[in-house]
Order: sequence, then structure tokens, then C-alpha cells
Amino acid sequence: MRLSRYFLPVMKETPADAQIISHKLMLRAGMIRQTAAGIYAWLPLGLRVLRRIENIIREEQARAGSLELLMPTLQTADLWRESGRYDAYGPEMLRIKDRHNRELLYGPTNEEMITALIRDNLQSYRDMPRIFYHIQWKFRDEVRPRFGVMRGREFLMKDAYSFDIDEAAGRHNYNRMFVAYLNSFARLGLRAIPMQADTGPIGGDLSHEFIVLAPNGESDVFYHSNWEQPGRHIEADFDDPKALQSIVNDHIADYAATDEKRDPLREAQAGEKLCQSRGIEVGHIFFFGTKYSKPMGFTLPGPDGKPIPIQMGSYGIGISRLLGAIIEASHDDNGIIWPEAVAPYHVGLINLRVDDENCQAIADTLYKRLEAAGVDTLYDDRNERGGAKFATMDLIGLPWQVVIGPKGAAKGVVELKNRASGKKQTLTIEEAFNLLKTGH
Amino acid sequence: MRLSRYFLPVMKETPADAQIISHKLMLRAGMIRQTAAGIYAWLPLGLRVLRRIENIIREEQARAGSLELLMPTLQTADLWRESGRYDAYGPEMLRIKDRHNRELLYGPTNEEMITALIRDNLQSYRDMPRIFYHIQWKFRDEVRPRFGVMRGREFLMKDAYSFDIDEAAGRHNYNRMFVAYLNSFARLGLRAIPMQADTGPIGGDLSHEFIVLAPNGESDVFYHSNWEQPGRHIEADFDDPKALQSIVNDHIADYAATDEKRDPLREAQAGEKLCQSRGIEVGHIFFFGTKYSKPMGFTLPGPDGKPIPIQMGSYGIGISRLLGAIIEASHDDNGIIWPEAVAPYHVGLINLRVDDENCQAIADTLYKRLEAAGVDTLYDDRNERGGAKFATMDLIGLPWQVVIGPKGAAKGVVELKNRASGKKQTLTIEEAFNLLKTGH
Repeated sequence: MRLSRYFLPVMKETPADAQIISHKLMLRAGMIRQTAAGIYAWLPLGLRVLRRIENIIREEQARAGSLELLMPTLQTADLWRESGRYDAYGPEMLRIKDRHNRELLYGPTNEEMITALIRDNLQSYRDMPRIFYHIQWKFRDEVRPRFGVMRGREFLMKDAYSFDIDEAAGRHNYNRMFVAYLNSFARLGLRAIPMQADTGPIGGDLSHEFIVLAPNGESDVFYHSNWEQPGRHIEADFDDPKALQSIVNDHIADYAATDEKRDPLREAQAGEKLCQSRGIEVGHIFFFGTKYSKPMGFTLPGPDGKPIPIQMGSYGIGISRLLGAIIEASHDDNGIIWPEAVAPYHVGLINLRVDDENCQAIADTLYKRLEAAGVDTLYDDRNERGGAKFATMDLIGLPWQVVIGPKGAAKGVVELKNRASGKKQTLTIEEAFNLLKTGH
Repeated sequence: MRLSRYFLPVMKETPADAQIISHKLMLRAGMIRQTAAGIYAWLPLGLRVLRRIENIIREEQARAGSLELLMPTLQTADLWRESGRYDAYGPEMLRIKDRHNRELLYGPTNEEMITALIRDNLQSYRDMPRIFYHIQWKFRDEVRPRFGVMRGREFLMKDAYSFDIDEAAGRHNYNRMFVAYLNSFARLGLRAIPMQADTGPIGGDLSHEFIVLAPNGESDVFYHSNWEQPGRHIEADFDDPKALQSIVNDHIADYAATDEKRDPLREAQAGEKLCQSRGIEVGHIFFFGTKYSKPMGFTLPGPDGKPIPIQMGSYGIGISRLLGAIIEASHDDNGIIWPEAVAPYHVGLINLRVDDENCQAIADTLYKRLEAAGVDTLYDDRNERGGAKFATMDLIGLPWQVVIGPKGAAKGVVELKNRASGKKQTLTIEEAFNLLKTGH
């Protein structure tokens, strides 16, 4: 993409209304703009990151056997009356009346809707086990929306729901999502630590939060220092309950707890390896058995024809919030440092002198070759000062920068900079192309 | 995808509440389910088609120089008061109050929001020309929602907006979208005819509707028989105003008009070649100059520093509605016939006898090879009668069916059926694989 044709309204000044670094940087880098309290428009650069994250989550859901569908944003109040949550939910639920005075609401979550949908469309216990997910905009009417996309009102969530005929199968599906979450966050370049959690308005007695360590996090967390090693993508057989349980056990062996769930005995065991930090919740999973299926009458005939109440769980990842969490965990004084997997572009190509024919020819050719090779490139072809171009590229945090200036161009070399390490190399055009194409 | 693990709740009976064929078929094929009046959940098969259509539209928008961003579903009433449309819009607008009693609305369209967003983030006439689009859920509170996704309340729309410093540039951007629409619909396998249109609540004096011929269409249309030839994808230079105007001229040369815009003189000229049909609107484009920029104060300093009021247009495609339109235009008594470009899967693979080892081995191997070759395959591996399997495959309308039965399996052959032509061939497994892989 040529920057002269792009829409990247970067800001030099830090916006006054932004308190935390991810909010500041997303505004400054031209990724989002607020359109109402806690409601944001996603500009092209922000949208690209959002889509990259979505796709990673999608791939890991599919790998774990979760099927994608898409439920609408608006729901009927009657549906929530079936479960008894309509009156219980409180003022965070945005309640709406349509032109015929029928009560609707903007879905904050979808347990009721998916329960009704699956209940009305499956026939037999043989249709289990099941996991469905969707990626859809949600609304929670926060009393004080703040921190940009970290605590917005309209936000993008991946929510999955599992359906099983008994508790053991239900726990296997829970473990499928547990491991899918470990893998999703590892691929996003995040160390997300699973911690036992309270279940709140969702319900149930088994629940984990996945929490990313970050100085600006919303809650205090306590953990064994083993958790500071980076996460890895795990090759799991999702159809093998034992193997999956063993992966889960490995990942709850080392102590980690939020403030509400601290365990003095285990903290004493950790001794000097006990660490403390702030954390950001990026995922939350629940197993709640028959909490929704019972009031909503979702049973399926078992092998003997008798109705079996369905065991359920739900599994959420705040996708729009993840952008904030990733930036909180990965930035420096100059701006964002995107992990490769979610970077909006792989390469930022800077032509320092658009009035120099040699620079122009080299930059144009390299840009075309990179694009043809499938390397996403943002090409700063504008007639701007070098300083502004460098600052913009550092701010938006693409993994690689290629700088083409008149001196180098005369010698047929370019400068390559790695955004994360800051390391610079002078390379021939061919060397730079090959490195960017292969990633090393 | 193995059907045993999929979620495809097909229905044998025609649902009583569906009046038109596309609505009936989308319900019967397990693509959608209604969750409230005019509001639908998209089941996995329906969602795949929705995404295919989205991606074609996206590619054609990018080709025409239109940049993707994403605006939220909810907007503030104040924004619509700036343009004067808040009170004028009527009961189709879903008006909402949040917990602080602030007035919001569920966006039915985004002229105001994009005007404010671009106004606040561009500095100079040199930032023109621009086209932005987004693909987002909209809500129009239809008094009588019906015809499934054809006239729903919550629907998915691609809406684009152009910004220019003078009318000539504005018309060039209008032509960009005109040609992008011709190309989008051609790739979707639709013959969409551009017709002069009234501008209604959007405003302006230049507008075209793109209308697909279908017996169940909502309006009467009159057209020259030349329009019955299929549309082709046009290789256009979108930066060449003259070339683009000439393509547009070619596509308004042959007569076509809705009931409200009939021209007796041109109809007389068409003579015996004048045809009449019903039509479905699938796209609508508008050029409305300064209708929004003026009241909302969007000017940019020109070369002499004087403020130039910005010329705008807007360009909509009803993406969820397109599924209905495609089915109306492409089905038979047995079900849907998907055009290749939007089919949810390319191949339906039927194993007629899951208890026959030979059939099982051939079907499993062919399925794995097709998947490995990137050919999207829906594999009916269920223990069901052949008749039910054939009926399901015809109903869901994948372009190709491969049938593996015990007699053929013994001889190493399979039956290949083309859904559109109904033509059947007996082929060796290798021949079938090669044909499906290359598409011919």
C-alpha cells in the first residue's frame, strides 16, 4: 500500500483524554477514533490488526473442533426471560424498544440465543459433543467507559459454547477450549496465564481467566516465575481426552492467581519464585453444566429414549481488547512494536527522497517485488521530511523498516531496521529483498 | 468438512412462514434461522456464502481504490442532528437511550459518521480524491419484515463514501464505484442492470440502482433484450476518467428502467426488443455533492487557502440480501444452484455405504486428497440412506457431487455430477480428482 493513497492520520501530540499507553498509541498511530463514549471507528491500520487477530483465533477454534456461525447483535428480551437473566443483568445491558414497542437488547453475550438455536435444531444425543463460536460485536453499557478499546462499550468478542451429554464430555470440551486459548495467545505473541476465576453473572463452578502481564493491567496477579517464559504453540490431539487433560494439568501446575483467589499455602511453596504484577484479562472460560439448558428446556433423548439435560460451557475472547493488551505488552518510547503474527504490514518501506530519481526507481521496484512476493508492505512514497517518516514508522510499529536514501542508492544498498531489536544493517537490495521475503 | 461433525439442520418440509423461494431454500438448507422478526442467525453453511460474497466485494472495492475501515453499529443522535436527518428519518430508525439517557441509534447508513470522521482527520485538498468503505451490520426497523434476508431488519451492508474537491472529480469517483459494482455482480454470477433511480432520503441528483432480474422481485422493470446476456468482468484503468466514463456510457446505452422511471420514447425505440420482468435491487449508488459536507462544515483549504466544500457520494450493496437474490436467480425444484464463486463448498462427496470397507477407503482417501489440494469439500460420511444424501446435496447446491457406491468402488470408479447441468459422468478416481482440482 502506498502511503500517499492510504489513510493514516497520525498525531504528534498525545491526546488529552487518553490515560494508558495503548489508548494513546492507538489514537496517535491512526488506528482508531472515538465516535461516542466507549464506541470507536476502526481506521484502516487498526482494522488490519483486528482482522489478523480474528483469523488466528478462527484457525485455533477450527483446530479444536469448534464450528463458526454468526448470531445477530440484537436479541429479544423474551429469550433472556427464559433463562431468568433479563431482570438480573443490570444496567450494563442496553435495552431497546422497536417501533412496535417490542423489547429488544444489544447482546452482551449469547448463552441464551445459542441454547435456543441448538435446542431447536438437534435431535439426538448422538449429535454431541459440539462446540460453536461466533465473532460478533457486543455491547455493554459501562458506567465509565475508558482506556480506549480496553474497556469500550461496543466491542468485538469471540464467544464459543459447548454442548455435551455428560459432565466428563463437558470437561473434555472445556479442555479443548483451554488448549485452544493457550495456542491462540501464544500465536498472538502474548504470554497469557490461566488463573482460576469467579464465574460472576455467567454462572457455573469451573472457570479460568487468561491474563496477560502488563504494568497498566486492571488487576493484581501473583504467579510463579516459571510463567515468565514465553508460551509455545502446542501440537495437541483434541480428540484425546487424556492427552488434553494432561496439557491442562501442566498449565495449572505452576501457581498463578488473581487477588481474589490467592492461596497462602501455594504462595509459601513458591517462596522466592513468587512474583507480583498487574494483569489484563484477555479470555475467560466457564463450565456451567445445566444452568441454561434446564430453565430453557434443552434436553436430548439418550440411548434409552429418556431426556438428558445438556451440559454447557462458554468461552470468550475480547478481540478488540486484545489490540490494547498486545500494545501494553509490546511497545517502547517511540511507539508500538507489533508481534509479527498480528502486524498490519510486515515491512515499512521509506523513500527518503522522492525527488531523487535513483531513490525513486529503487523504492518503486523493491515495493513492486515485495508485493508480488506476498510481503505486505506499507510504502512511504510521500514528499515529507525524513524525520517525520522515521517517527511515523516507529510509531506504527511494523516489524521491519527499509530505508532508501540517496547515498545508499548510489552504491546500490539500503538500510534495514528491525523495529523490535532496533538493529540496523546495510544490505544490497537483493539481500534485503531475500531477508524480508523469508523472514530471516 | 465431515458432515458428521458439521451443523447442517436441513428440513424436508417447507416452513410455513416463508413465502418466496430463496427464504424457503435458505431455511430448508440449514443456512439461517430467524431469532426475532427480521433478525437471523447465520448457521455455518450460510455464513460461508456470506463470507465469500464479502470477499469478492472487498477485492473489487480495493481494485477501484476504495479503502476499508470499520465504523461501529451504534451512533449518536447528535451526529444526525448535524445533518438534519435525525427528525426526518422516520420510524425505520431504531432509536435507543443508554443508561445515562443519552440518545443513540442503530445505524441504518453512515453518511454522517464518515463525514465527521474524514472532516476531522484530513488537512488539505491534496488529500483528495478518496473513497472509503466498510462492511458492517445495519438496522432498519421495517414495519413488516419479510422474505427472509431479502427484507430483514438487521442486515449486512457494504457502504462506501467518496470525497472530492470538485464535481468532475466526484463524478470520476462515482464512475469508479459504478464499474466496481458491474465487476462485483459479474463475479457473483449475477446480471445486475444499472438503472436511473430516485434518491430518496439519501439525497442528490445522480443515482443508479443495480437490479437483478428475478420472477419474485419487488419491482417491475423494463429493459432492452441486450441486457439478457451475461455480465463480464471488465479490466478497467480506474485512474483514467475518460476510459471509465466510456465504460459507464456503454452500460447505460441500452434502455433499462424501473416502473417510476419509464421513458416512452426510448421504449418505442427498443420496439420488439423491449422486455419486462420483476427485479431485485442489490446495489444503489448516489452522488449528492455537498448535501452532508455543507451542514456538517466539511471544507478543506484549496490551493489558494480558501475553503472548498467537499463533494460526496455514497454507494451501497446489501450483502446479506445478495444471498437471497442469487438464490432467486439460480435454483431448481431440488434446491439451490450456487455459482462457483460463492458456493460454500466446491464439492459434495457422498459415500453411499459407510459399512462397505472399499467405499470407505476410497471416500476417505479422496476427501483427504481434495482437502490437501485446497478444494473445499463437504464429505457426507454419515450412516444415512442414499436417497437422503442425494436430496441434501441437491438442496444445498454445491457445484459438484461425487458419489461413491459399492459397485463403482469395486471397479475403481466414481460418479461425478454437475449440479447446474445435471450431467453425470463415470470416472476413475484419478480422473475425478483431476477434474475437481482444475475445475474442468
